[in-house]
Amino acid sequence: MPKTFSVERLIRFSHCDPGGIVYFVNFFDMCNATVEDWFTQMLGMSFHEIHLQRRWGFPIVDTGCHFSKPCWLSDRLKLTLSIAKLGHSSIEFAIHGTVKGEEKFRARHKVAMISLDTYRAIPIPDELRAKMEAYVAAPR
Amino acid sequence: MPKTFSVERLIRFSHCDPGGIVYFVNFFDMCNATVEDWFTQMLGMSFHEIHLQRRWGFPIVDTGCHFSKPCWLSDRLKLTLSIAKLGHSSIEFAIHGTVKGEEKFRARHKVAMISLDTYRAIPIPDELRAKMEAYVAAPR
Amino acid sequence: MPKTFSVERLIRFSHCDPGGIVYFVNFFDMCNATVEDWFTQMLGMSFHEIHLQRRWGFPIVDTGCHFSKPCWLSDRLKLTLSIAKLGHSSIEFAIHGTVKGEEKFRARHKVAMISLDTYRAIPIPDELRAKMEAYVAAPR
Amino acid sequence: MPKTFSVERLIRFSHCDPGGIVYFVNFFDMCNATVEDWFTQMLGMSFHEIHLQRRWGFPIVDTGCHFSKPCWLSDRLKLTLSIAKLGHSSIEFAIHGTVKGEEKFRARHKVAMISLDTYRAIPIPDELRAKMEAYVAAPR
Repeated sequence: MPKTFSVERLIRFSHCDPGGIVYFVNFFDMCNATVEDWFTQMLGMSFHEIHLQRRWGFPIVDTGCHFSKPCWLSDRLKLTLSIAKLGHSSIEFAIHGTVKGEEKFRARHKVAMISLDTYRAIPIPDELRAKMEAYVAAPR
Repeated sequence: MPKTFSVERLIRFSHCDPGGIVYFVNFFDMCNATVEDWFTQMLGMSFHEIHLQRRWGFPIVDTGCHFSKPCWLSDRLKLTLSIAKLGHSSIEFAIHGTVKGEEKFRARHKVAMISLDTYRAIPIPDELRAKMEAYVAAPR
Repeated sequence: MPKTFSVERLIRFSHCDPGGIVYFVNFFDMCNATVEDWFTQMLGMSFHEIHLQRRWGFPIVDTGCHFSKPCWLSDRLKLTLSIAKLGHSSIEFAIHGTVKGEEKFRARHKVAMISLDTYRAIPIPDELRAKMEAYVAAPR
Repeated sequence: MPKTFSVERLIRFSHCDPGGIVYFVNFFDMCNATVEDWFTQMLGMSFHEIHLQRRWGFPIVDTGCHFSKPCWLSDRLKLTLSIAKLGHSSIEFAIHGTVKGEEKFRARHKVAMISLDTYRAIPIPDELRAKMEAYVAAPR
């Protein structure tokens, strides 16, 4: 069984638009934060270590989201991350947003791994790949 | 020949991340602002009129973006909007980002038209549809 | 002894600017979120209840911040809230930011209490005032 | 007569909160953008040149704002910048926000000038100081 990683985020006043629902852009920020938390908590590397010490970057190559229901002020949004595709030097995350079990959105979020010195793609190191593989969802 | 609508945005300090390039989330905000400008300037309706007087909303149903090159501080990003698909009560925009002619990203951004009183989809009114049709790109 | 209320926030990639430090605007957003958490956790009222059910608003009247040291990616920022002045229909918060005991900023953040129906100031209700008084810092 | 520098900003959907008015944090971002535009247009130096070529930074030391009236969706906000105090290695801006002549806010925004190599304060170079002096408001 592939692993998943979940975080919960409170929907704040500042996330909401004049219609009273979350401004969609904030969901992309939350997806990115979920990836950041997963690196820190599950792979054991903070973004500080990754960016400043290792000099690795993870620019977004392709991202997209289907929104099925709006989120409201004070909702507790659960974001669940798995890996849809683990490439040579890229990771495509699947991130699923729910509130009390109701689906709010499904995102695909593909990042490349690059060197911040050369700005070129680099292969995902074996030490990271081994930990990442546990999160690769079975093909459907 | 279908029409397009273009705006130019300065890439500001506040848009950029510690890698010195635009944090991707800001591109989605700029796409949304381009739609807002198009409504105001090309359809002749401000978001104030649309949301507060007409009581229409345009929630995002599906959005996605492929990023081909990073944008840098003080770049002047040109965003060009056309309509990929005009539905009964939805609009799928194609938004193309370039700096000095170099492609930076290609986004698809689908919104639904709803009543803010019922939160249900409503058909795009004829007066708007007629103006929108000029921006529908030929199928490729 | 007056009470204080503290929350901890992870400094994320998205909070940081091209200089690698937190873009100052994000500190104001974090101060606002601290007030939101204090209402929810200490006064027992979510912003959903406050805004949508009670129809109360807390617009910012005056805010300011002195920044003594920068915050860096992956820092854990502790925000500590107390009340500098509790007025008839206003609250002036003092919010203090530290990382591992080192002071990063000191903010003053004054909000008014209004009715969202009339957009006029209303007196802070006794049930709230009683709980708020415990957080009023002694004058210095 | 001291000079002032003004820019106009459209209040967008994304700037507004569930109360329908501008979320206050966005005013600080607009003040910062006004400083950025002033450097580029009036001093003749883009933030790209300042940060990446000259290796100068302008961290915020102290900022504050008094809000007198809310701003609404589709308002056109005029921000007017002058210099309240020009120090040895600091600049304190006064930024005034109005819509159709009605005052919305008054901000004080003090930045220091530092070297991005040493992270220490440096004196404002004479070539910049000469241009800045024209914007110093007479003491009141």
